[in-house]
Amino acid sequence: MSPASRYTYLGPEGTFTEAALRTLPEAATRELVPMVSVPAALDAVRNGEAGGSLVPIENSVEGGVTATLDELATGRPLMIYREVLLPIAFALLVRPGTALEAVKTVTGHPVAQPQVRRWLAEHLPDAQWESAASNADGARLVQEGRYDAAFAGEFAAATYGLEPLVTGIHDAENAATRFVLVGRPGRPAARTGADKTSLVLWLGDDHPGALLELLQEFAVRGVNLVRIESRPTGEGIGRYCFSVDAEGHISDRRVGEALMGLRRICPKVRFLGSYPRAGVEPSQTTPLRRGTTDDEFAEAADWLARCVDGRA
Amino acid sequence: MSPASRYTYLGPEGTFTEAALRTLPEAATRELVPMVSVPAALDAVRNGEAGGSLVPIENSVEGGVTATLDELATGRPLMIYREVLLPIAFALLVRPGTALEAVKTVTGHPVAQPQVRRWLAEHLPDAQWESAASNADGARLVQEGRYDAAFAGEFAAATYGLEPLVTGIHDAENAATRFVLVGRPGRPAARTGADKTSLVLWLGDDHPGALLELLQEFAVRGVNLVRIESRPTGEGIGRYCFSVDAEGHISDRRVGEALMGLRRICPKVRFLGSYPRAGVEPSQTTPLRRGTTDDEFAEAADWLARCVDGRA
Amino acid sequence: MSPASRYTYLGPEGTFTEAALRTLPEAATRELVPMVSVPAALDAVRNGEAGGSLVPIENSVEGGVTATLDELATGRPLMIYREVLLPIAFALLVRPGTALEAVKTVTGHPVAQPQVRRWLAEHLPDAQWESAASNADGARLVQEGRYDAAFAGEFAAATYGLEPLVTGIHDAENAATRFVLVGRPGRPAARTGADKTSLVLWLGDDHPGALLELLQEFAVRGVNLVRIESRPTGEGIGRYCFSVDAEGHISDRRVGEALMGLRRICPKVRFLGSYPRAGVEPSQTTPLRRGTTDDEFAEAADWLARCVDGRA
Amino acid sequence: MSPASRYTYLGPEGTFTEAALRTLPEAATRELVPMVSVPAALDAVRNGEAGGSLVPIENSVEGGVTATLDELATGRPLMIYREVLLPIAFALLVRPGTALEAVKTVTGHPVAQPQVRRWLAEHLPDAQWESAASNADGARLVQEGRYDAAFAGEFAAATYGLEPLVTGIHDAENAATRFVLVGRPGRPAARTGADKTSLVLWLGDDHPGALLELLQEFAVRGVNLVRIESRPTGEGIGRYCFSVDAEGHISDRRVGEALMGLRRICPKVRFLGSYPRAGVEPSQTTPLRRGTTDDEFAEAADWLARCVDGRA
Repeated sequence: MSPASRYTYLGPEGTFTEAALRTLPEAATRELVPMVSVPAALDAVRNGEAGGSLVPIENSVEGGVTATLDELATGRPLMIYREVLLPIAFALLVRPGTALEAVKTVTGHPVAQPQVRRWLAEHLPDAQWESAASNADGARLVQEGRYDAAFAGEFAAATYGLEPLVTGIHDAENAATRFVLVGRPGRPAARTGADKTSLVLWLGDDHPGALLELLQEFAVRGVNLVRIESRPTGEGIGRYCFSVDAEGHISDRRVGEALMGLRRICPKVRFLGSYPRAGVEPSQTTPLRRGTTDDEFAEAADWLARCVDGRA
Repeated sequence: MSPASRYTYLGPEGTFTEAALRTLPEAATRELVPMVSVPAALDAVRNGEAGGSLVPIENSVEGGVTATLDELATGRPLMIYREVLLPIAFALLVRPGTALEAVKTVTGHPVAQPQVRRWLAEHLPDAQWESAASNADGARLVQEGRYDAAFAGEFAAATYGLEPLVTGIHDAENAATRFVLVGRPGRPAARTGADKTSLVLWLGDDHPGALLELLQEFAVRGVNLVRIESRPTGEGIGRYCFSVDAEGHISDRRVGEALMGLRRICPKVRFLGSYPRAGVEPSQTTPLRRGTTDDEFAEAADWLARCVDGRA
Repeated sequence: MSPASRYTYLGPEGTFTEAALRTLPEAATRELVPMVSVPAALDAVRNGEAGGSLVPIENSVEGGVTATLDELATGRPLMIYREVLLPIAFALLVRPGTALEAVKTVTGHPVAQPQVRRWLAEHLPDAQWESAASNADGARLVQEGRYDAAFAGEFAAATYGLEPLVTGIHDAENAATRFVLVGRPGRPAARTGADKTSLVLWLGDDHPGALLELLQEFAVRGVNLVRIESRPTGEGIGRYCFSVDAEGHISDRRVGEALMGLRRICPKVRFLGSYPRAGVEPSQTTPLRRGTTDDEFAEAADWLARCVDGRA
Repeated sequence: MSPASRYTYLGPEGTFTEAALRTLPEAATRELVPMVSVPAALDAVRNGEAGGSLVPIENSVEGGVTATLDELATGRPLMIYREVLLPIAFALLVRPGTALEAVKTVTGHPVAQPQVRRWLAEHLPDAQWESAASNADGARLVQEGRYDAAFAGEFAAATYGLEPLVTGIHDAENAATRFVLVGRPGRPAARTGADKTSLVLWLGDDHPGALLELLQEFAVRGVNLVRIESRPTGEGIGRYCFSVDAEGHISDRRVGEALMGLRRICPKVRFLGSYPRAGVEPSQTTPLRRGTTDDEFAEAADWLARCVDGRA
């Protein structure tokens, strides 16, 4: 297969990331390659060894996946073309025949722990937790007899010869992980009417109100933010950049004008792509504020042209 | 002479408006026609009987000349092509031979009164003031012997056979009147680098914060206001429109974008023209905020195009 | 009568101001004294010759009554204790027996003219208008035979031996004049739940955005403005102060906090009083934004105290 | 020793957290107890087993220490009383006698890796990295012979019988870690003039502009933010709370008023303490905006009281 038809993902096999990747129709015709880390998965794309990569970017319990945010903010540019939302539900995987009472040690990825903490306290209050490198790795360690049980996706049971003793475990209602399909820079995904635009914005100087100014560039054009996270720039305590997801597509006039405004006031802006919002139909998007539709932008531009020409 | 070469002005002859009009080089080749009122002066332009009209629009002591503001805001559209700033300094005009001690009655236009009040209290504490229809009319009434003295422009003395007993009278330092040269809608005056753009803006609904939103359309593009006045719309107590002068020319990108933003959120916007600021050199304008020059707008538009094309 | 029981008003007798004053119950027990001008009416209060004065402050067709605005903004402080809203409806007063066809000349106060312009154009297109010093003065001039008809309040007919030929004349729907009852500074009128607070605010320096900052002091506390007008400070073209009416009473916590904020950022603030809104019941006021009731202010202050004391 | 004189910290011994704790003078008289995790360290305080706990909260390379942020935002309330800023500089610890050329495997805490990545690429391009549970743990594993070298604080060498082969390693200039000393809720640390106030703020509803409103509560009182981070609330993708550090002390009037404003508009606010800014003298703080000193607040409150009493 050509590199372009290869997709990397944050491995190993049997993790939620692989499950998320397999929800994409095109995954059926791609070579799916697990990688040991987010940087490794994305570098394969940067180097031309893969056409795309699926990595987790946000977890409603643990917050931003900082490795992904930082990889996208720095280094050779990449772009997001798709997002996948996967509800979080763990299974407790055990070797066949193990009873719940027999579970004295449990393992799983560190980010899994806070998501099953309450369940553990209630059902296995005496079990001892030790972290594994990944949920799949935890399953492997159970297979090897190192632990009695592992929290992982139910889909991982078969791979490791385990059985799901309990399924549907998740402390928080509505817990989900968001993954993004990343590729080299190119033309953004087509506009669907329920889109999202991702950016990284650097604040110019430390002047109070700089973040407020930045938010006003969105607000004055009626562009809503659905996520904003600060990330350190690595230039010392107190220096941040902001990772932002805004509603709308770069080809929407209001979004384009906001982006140009940010480009003018921020010392650095990185456009990370416009792509369809997972799980949101066009009819479910936030109603546009008056004066922010493409038609209204076009009408205003016509009016301005008439004013300049003396025909208003 | 053709109507196009005729300029009307707020008369009668011998007023400050005529003096302001004569500061324009082109006045030498125009037929200058005094009119009885601002509406009459402007209607002559609307009807094609004159090519332009000079009317007072702002007086630093008395505030906006409301007749002018309201005429420009309503009725058939007109545009401003030039402004003239005239320092206010009154002369006390008397019949030849009259001494200051002999002045018992004085007259002048009602707007002159607050501008000479302190001078009168000091030099003629017992003189009685009565208002005249205009400063020039006051001079005429002195000529006819009805009053002892009139406050008017020194230039009016000759017309009425009077002599200026005292000159340079003005209570407030820096007092000035601003006049505008108005014509039918056409291409705005050329950009000079020290320009002003005049608008009338109607607020959409009564929601609190509507004025704040309107001001933010200017602020976010770094466009400064030099004047803002509310005027009643005539639709009842509490309904206003705003007469606004902003720094910059409609062909400046930051001004154009602000105008389009206002056009989108206001139910009605009237563009009254872009024209050179009287008495301000390009080097004296407010420094532009970062990110608001035409070059920065152009660079941001290029960048957006590259993002949309996948070449950023 | 003692000076305290004397009310001055903008005369002469028979004007709308007198009619407005007579709508106040207490007017029945006061000596009502007409004065020749707004400054004269207010100076009588300042000098202790009168306990109060009723003057027009806003006219929904002509806008702010600038003499009143400027008198309240400067000179020895005064305060507003009450407002009166009077629907505008002119009567055409004639000498008994005059027919409409016989009316060739009409008079009235200059501010009356734009409010009857359309009616005149329709019913008396050929009649000639000349301005009088007041509506009442116009009626007197008709009585003396100088004009055929005067626009004035219907109530003026009897005073001048005239009869109302046509009544209820007003071009604009909902036209009204707002009057204020002014006194020397004292404790504001009691809170009613439908109150208004009047202020004059000076902008600190000419920095762009100064007006925006001023409006944000109101907005952040959820205080709505019902009127804002710029007035020249008399210090030269481009220097303004703002005459503002806000919803709410100075004893409302949100209003008090906004006032203190303005006091801190403006070089000068003049508090002109809190008083009941004419024609507005408490149930008709703009709903308060969340977090701006007195209870919510009190709860937040309690919480802050607990935080400071280590008991939160 | 009594529990009150016991301080826990994020262990094990020999980590930067211990080094940070030992910079506090009072540490000399306290029992210092390493704990296996941030939650464990803080729960000891909650349970009364310790009087305080030092935990890392921010790392200028890796960003917020999410475990600390989330522990402070939820569960039984805690407060911050002090912060410690520790420059990041790693030593490469080896068994005595090991030469740089002999280092084939290196270990350290995962957060150390990005901070020494460039140094590794330059000086040990072929060495293989494996993560340890902590920097101290990595040192122990080197002692046991599992790895050739560990990145850790130079101070950890003695504890594990190692020697620092290279010191002062840090990729980013100005890299530092910020630690906080946490205790049960009580009276905040005394005001020093260079203070910081920490808060967690929940946004009320998802309405666009909610974050902007929140920032304006600070901005309008001239309170500067030095850090803002979004954290998921655990209630589903797209629901965040904000962890915020503001300049100033809760007893500063501008800070107190901003806090009350936030309390009123946010469904939930958690006050995490006011404490001295590490490494910042009062003379180095951001100059206060006009109108935001305690004196100006007091003067404005006096003025308001005079207005309410009719003595303004």
